[in-house]
Amino acid sequence: MRAAIFAGPRVIEVGDRPDPAVAAPTDAVVRVVLGCVCGSDLWYYRGESPHELGPIGHEFIGVVEEVGAEVRSLGPGDFVVAPFTYCDGTCAHCRAGVTSQCVAGGSFGNHGIDGGQGEAVRVPLASSTLVKVPGSGHSDETMRSLLTLSDVMCAGHHAAMSAGVKQGSVVAVVGDGAVGLCAVIAARRLGASRIITLSRNPARQQLAQSFGATDVTAERGDAATEAILEMTHGVGVDAALECVGTGQSVATALAIARPGSTVGVVGAPHGVDVPIIDAVVYRNIGLRGGVAPGRTYIPELLDDVLQGRINPGRVFDFETDLDGIVEGYVAMDERRAIKSVVRVGTV
Amino acid sequence: MRAAIFAGPRVIEVGDRPDPAVAAPTDAVVRVVLGCVCGSDLWYYRGESPHELGPIGHEFIGVVEEVGAEVRSLGPGDFVVAPFTYCDGTCAHCRAGVTSQCVAGGSFGNHGIDGGQGEAVRVPLASSTLVKVPGSGHSDETMRSLLTLSDVMCAGHHAAMSAGVKQGSVVAVVGDGAVGLCAVIAARRLGASRIITLSRNPARQQLAQSFGATDVTAERGDAATEAILEMTHGVGVDAALECVGTGQSVATALAIARPGSTVGVVGAPHGVDVPIIDAVVYRNIGLRGGVAPGRTYIPELLDDVLQGRINPGRVFDFETDLDGIVEGYVAMDERRAIKSVVRVGTV
Repeated sequence: MRAAIFAGPRVIEVGDRPDPAVAAPTDAVVRVVLGCVCGSDLWYYRGESPHELGPIGHEFIGVVEEVGAEVRSLGPGDFVVAPFTYCDGTCAHCRAGVTSQCVAGGSFGNHGIDGGQGEAVRVPLASSTLVKVPGSGHSDETMRSLLTLSDVMCAGHHAAMSAGVKQGSVVAVVGDGAVGLCAVIAARRLGASRIITLSRNPARQQLAQSFGATDVTAERGDAATEAILEMTHGVGVDAALECVGTGQSVATALAIARPGSTVGVVGAPHGVDVPIIDAVVYRNIGLRGGVAPGRTYIPELLDDVLQGRINPGRVFDFETDLDGIVEGYVAMDERRAIKSVVRVGTV
Repeated sequence: MRAAIFAGPRVIEVGDRPDPAVAAPTDAVVRVVLGCVCGSDLWYYRGESPHELGPIGHEFIGVVEEVGAEVRSLGPGDFVVAPFTYCDGTCAHCRAGVTSQCVAGGSFGNHGIDGGQGEAVRVPLASSTLVKVPGSGHSDETMRSLLTLSDVMCAGHHAAMSAGVKQGSVVAVVGDGAVGLCAVIAARRLGASRIITLSRNPARQQLAQSFGATDVTAERGDAATEAILEMTHGVGVDAALECVGTGQSVATALAIARPGSTVGVVGAPHGVDVPIIDAVVYRNIGLRGGVAPGRTYIPELLDDVLQGRINPGRVFDFETDLDGIVEGYVAMDERRAIKSVVRVGTV
């Protein structure tokens, strides 16, 4: 099969890889229909964090081709969403809903596991990992939204859940990337009455507003803090959702959070330390979030996607195919694209 | 009146201060019955953190002597518990229950506000700050427990509430000081099924057990983490309560917390930074806590004290009077005492 292969910083090649086959009785092989490029793929693409040379991409939807003897809930022909991590569904962390910390788990597109940026994937622990999508003949719009359930929509939802967004919450979303935009959808879905988005990009501002943002500020850093404190009569927001992962974005999220609230942290701030005494202790601000337990969230979000109540697929504003995948990386790296979808096969 | 006065590191003097009087219509003057020394009083006593020269002590119970014209819920002769911070009860933070962040608030024993380690205190915003204790003729045991509601019992409760302790939780309490011991009481009160206490002091271990601790480990650092992971079959605890405030105690609390859980942080770790990526993001551990909103918690805890369901006053293992207050500091500084009660007056 053909697949994208990481050959070093700024070197993504499309080449041949062995066709995946069932190796363990709990495996399934999935033929990829849509894959995509994640903001976190840019870390190793840019050389900012290490990554094994080999297959890449952790987000995909596709069709089951073959299953191992112990996979009973799925069969060939089933159309599925894959969360970006696989999980056994039975360990203590999975049972507690934190499937992203499964003791037997791992992520796609790393450590010898096939990536979603390729024609097919061997999925370990398939029964407890893949989520079957009911129905058939889904529109392209729906397909793109289903693809976001693989990662970004769950990440945005995790930010909102971690921060405790509820009916009537005043929310601020720090970050106008795909995750931040999905966090707007999630906050709206959970009943937030006001959603302030931080963005200076007109197209992203507009998309955020169409997703439910009620206010936009183009300010950053101290000026953003000032603006949001003014909007909230000096109180701060009930839930600040940190969807960037830089020192500045973390500092802003902490500064605009109202005392007693919890900042939902789903950005991955490498090298950013929080002085506990200043925020957690003296300002009573909590921090919570991390790697989204996608497998836990997909079922409830899936229903909203299929009913057309949420349309997160609109974060994809660049489309390519496997041969053109490098363009998908470059468009995101140059910030010309929010997120690139990779059309690999058909249902 | 006579009061303890901070005159510099390791210099606590007992001297004369002006008799407090009602200055604003929302003030009350309270004659102190019991005061005490807080672990945080040792910070400035030892010269580890700055403190204005002047009155000290932020914990006290006493009898109302005089009230301003706008204080209607209290009157002379009322016996009251004072939370360690005063608050207006009407600002956005108070209404949200975070009275420790009141925009009009402040703490006793600093910035010109009388301290609890003296014969009397002018209490600002008295109606919304002081909590009247029903009944009379309370035993000395009850009186000591009422005094803990001024700070430490609320701090321990805040650790447990912040970490989301509930029926059946497996809890670990890092710290065997007065706050840690009260956190054991709080965890038990909220229904924890297992409470592991970290202590190497036999008397404190015993007190923790009498408060509801089911397991004790004398280990610290990595060895404590190993021991607790072993006790929890490698999963970690549902709620780690950080009641010390050092780099090591914070690291231990994070390491023993199960993924998806929230560490309740009520120690004040000066100069301790948490690398968000390692704990919050990659291990899905939350952090929450800070300065306890005592005024919010006192009413519910008060009932348990008066009914004898909890007896946190047992953390006081050293008693002195105002003239002997230096001894109360020294006993705690030398770790001969968990917490020193200062008998100032009678009801």
